[in-house]
Amino acid sequence: MSPGITVNQNIAEMEYAVRGPIPQRAAELRRQGKRTIPCNIGNPQGLGQQPISYYRQVLSLLEAPSKIARERRLNKLRSSAPAAFAGLAADDFVSDYILDLCDEMLAKFETGLGAYTESKGPLFIREAIARFIDTREDAESSGAPRSDPEHIFLTNGASEAGKNLVDLLIADRRDGLMIPTPQYPLYSAAIRRAGGCQVNYYLDEDSGWTLNRSMLEEALAAATRDGVAVKAIVVINPGNPTGAVLPKESIREVVDFAGQHGLAIIADEVYQDNTYGATFVSFAQTVGSQDVPLFSLHSTSKGFCGECGRRGGYVEVRNPPAVTNTSLSFMDLLLKQASVSLCSNTIGQALTYLMVCPPAPDSAPHKQFVEEKKQVLEDLYNKAALIRAAFAEMNGVECFGRTGAMYLFPRLNRLPAGTTDFDYCMSLLEAVGLCTVNGSGFGQRAGTNHLRVAFLPSRELLEEVLPRWVEFHNAYVNRKQ
Amino acid sequence: MSPGITVNQNIAEMEYAVRGPIPQRAAELRRQGKRTIPCNIGNPQGLGQQPISYYRQVLSLLEAPSKIARERRLNKLRSSAPAAFAGLAADDFVSDYILDLCDEMLAKFETGLGAYTESKGPLFIREAIARFIDTREDAESSGAPRSDPEHIFLTNGASEAGKNLVDLLIADRRDGLMIPTPQYPLYSAAIRRAGGCQVNYYLDEDSGWTLNRSMLEEALAAATRDGVAVKAIVVINPGNPTGAVLPKESIREVVDFAGQHGLAIIADEVYQDNTYGATFVSFAQTVGSQDVPLFSLHSTSKGFCGECGRRGGYVEVRNPPAVTNTSLSFMDLLLKQASVSLCSNTIGQALTYLMVCPPAPDSAPHKQFVEEKKQVLEDLYNKAALIRAAFAEMNGVECFGRTGAMYLFPRLNRLPAGTTDFDYCMSLLEAVGLCTVNGSGFGQRAGTNHLRVAFLPSRELLEEVLPRWVEFHNAYVNRKQ
Repeated sequence: MSPGITVNQNIAEMEYAVRGPIPQRAAELRRQGKRTIPCNIGNPQGLGQQPISYYRQVLSLLEAPSKIARERRLNKLRSSAPAAFAGLAADDFVSDYILDLCDEMLAKFETGLGAYTESKGPLFIREAIARFIDTREDAESSGAPRSDPEHIFLTNGASEAGKNLVDLLIADRRDGLMIPTPQYPLYSAAIRRAGGCQVNYYLDEDSGWTLNRSMLEEALAAATRDGVAVKAIVVINPGNPTGAVLPKESIREVVDFAGQHGLAIIADEVYQDNTYGATFVSFAQTVGSQDVPLFSLHSTSKGFCGECGRRGGYVEVRNPPAVTNTSLSFMDLLLKQASVSLCSNTIGQALTYLMVCPPAPDSAPHKQFVEEKKQVLEDLYNKAALIRAAFAEMNGVECFGRTGAMYLFPRLNRLPAGTTDFDYCMSLLEAVGLCTVNGSGFGQRAGTNHLRVAFLPSRELLEEVLPRWVEFHNAYVNRKQ
Repeated sequence: MSPGITVNQNIAEMEYAVRGPIPQRAAELRRQGKRTIPCNIGNPQGLGQQPISYYRQVLSLLEAPSKIARERRLNKLRSSAPAAFAGLAADDFVSDYILDLCDEMLAKFETGLGAYTESKGPLFIREAIARFIDTREDAESSGAPRSDPEHIFLTNGASEAGKNLVDLLIADRRDGLMIPTPQYPLYSAAIRRAGGCQVNYYLDEDSGWTLNRSMLEEALAAATRDGVAVKAIVVINPGNPTGAVLPKESIREVVDFAGQHGLAIIADEVYQDNTYGATFVSFAQTVGSQDVPLFSLHSTSKGFCGECGRRGGYVEVRNPPAVTNTSLSFMDLLLKQASVSLCSNTIGQALTYLMVCPPAPDSAPHKQFVEEKKQVLEDLYNKAALIRAAFAEMNGVECFGRTGAMYLFPRLNRLPAGTTDFDYCMSLLEAVGLCTVNGSGFGQRAGTNHLRVAFLPSRELLEEVLPRWVEFHNAYVNRKQ
């Protein structure tokens, strides 16, 4: 047997708390037959959220195109002999609107879902995304720059887009990316893996996790003094793990900062539909016609769609930076990266198309679609409110900022001396079965204690579990040391 | 505006001919409204190959679980009032076997297709893959080591598995991987991207692209002299781009070689069903109980499945190497890599399950499944034979080895002086619309000329195009220089 090999040290050192020791312990408990509640991850359908029917009806027919004609035949038979179909409900039949849409999508896919597509994804989907962005920004009336379908890449979830960008931007081990603290550990993991430098900037917890310019300048200046060449700044809005929905001024500060220092912006905007009444302000809109490189990520995993398992997503590029060490353009390089993976998965692509093209207001599926969307978002907000109410009963727990994304990130002010938020989360898992992620897993400031909880369990489950959490908590923080 | 940035030089230098200049020119021609025939890539459904109906029926119902009960109601209505359904064909109805299977798969997925799964993929699919491998190797009666579901990772296509392995194995810029020449450029691209050394070993064209030990030893010795630490050897069987199906002796030589020199084996076995009558010999079987680290890749994109767009695949690990520079095991490291991508797409996972679990011999869908499978494989072989017959009419074209995988890789012995196989393929595209990849794109020996053509166009299309290719070829090689 070989004495052993060395492996990529960057991968050995990479950390990813969202699937780290606490979730791994939860998996062990499940194997022992114990119930655990996976609030460690934003996986709504994993906790019972129902998919949007419209999306599934379309995907189902795209999988088996011969069924489209069959549904048309069924509709015809039903209208000619309704009595024979008395055993079926009205929603057992598929509307012509959906059947026509499926025919149209398959015609545009040209070779169905079973073939590789263009590396960037099919043009008709990229065009639909560009229209979606232009509509969101009201580009027509505002005169803002239009989204360019050739600058859009479909990816296997937004994570793939994020990792590819980090890989491309890190040219040297002294290259750095600014990331928020606390942050979603995808970015720290990707930077570690690419062998670059992670440059933290802090979010202002007491001001609802907003950004301020002096914190950005301070972080950049410190990194520059250490010899780090900062290439880009990552912003997650709405925030993960904080749930914060950034106000326009915070976004304006980032754009000005990036413009002044020649940085690119990676805007992780996958929670743009999870604002619960607050206004989502996009980076595209704020950058406007300024020449600041912008990479904006979106996904089918979040919002009211919640189809995490599909790995659908995209990145839209504006003002790609000039490149000095190769004759290829930045867009050429992104295309080459995409090419080596051939293409993203076609169901994720199709779902991305549906996400950016909701059913027309006067169409048959519209009413149900709107009702389901509203219900999912209302339920999410109400579940967050239930958890916040439980925090109020917990000794020394404060939760800042308004509710956004799918997470609450409370501060635990009164942990017993010598214990950490990791210890707390592990004990919470053992005692109550609730799987959360400790704040230190998101790189939060040393000496503070937090946890991230996804507000996804059903109302019934929360009503059962939250009192047990409150009881656990107050016993934990008040125990004799 | 920023004066420009440096980007990752490894990505700048990475090459990927399968989606390189010739296919890019083809895309341009298509945009101009010209017909091109994409034989540059193994994308069967992109050239009209029909999906296996059984797979699609199941996937369609998994997408919309409420339709399973509806199909049961329809079946019942039909049996009670057959006259009302006279307008539908028998295959408009779904068999109980398929309906039961869908219920069972959804129960095992637990949270449907819309949730993230375990990072490795759902256990029931990994168990099914292990059973498939054990059956293929006849492990029960041979006493060979069993496949371990915990050593199987589902991935977005086999490409993702290949890239992850290369990333993990390259710890230093002096680390190298041996890859066949000619080779599928995924491996050279992944090595370049990871910043490691590509160590070529040649395949013996005149002996039907088989391997021989002296060529392996020679390549390793040369690399070692150059200070390269070789970590693993990649073998593609059946071959890409060569189409060669390796005999047992070749595989035995690789295993002995790897064992003796302490190398891991990356066995790209995605074409294991594309042998057209030859016997596929797996590396798992040949390694047997020897302690040689083995990574075997498989995919839903090839074989008779041909569902490239789904990005389904897996890697099975045997004898994971000991790791010296971290306390984590090799399996821990693979899991951490997988975790950062959360999970592979669920439709690709479901399709992988179907690939390793064909319908039972006495089940309703079995007959059609077997007929479709047979037809796809026969068609592929017959199309290869048609192209080979055309080679016989082309001046100075020789095609070695038996037909395997989805490619022919003929040698062009008589190109005009001063022209390369790249020039030839580009002219072939312009003149005939046929998009192929030049042999140099696969790293073939300098001074030789080849091309790779995927034998995927329909018989009708080949019958139209091949005479034009023959005509083009003979004019090209005989032209005045």
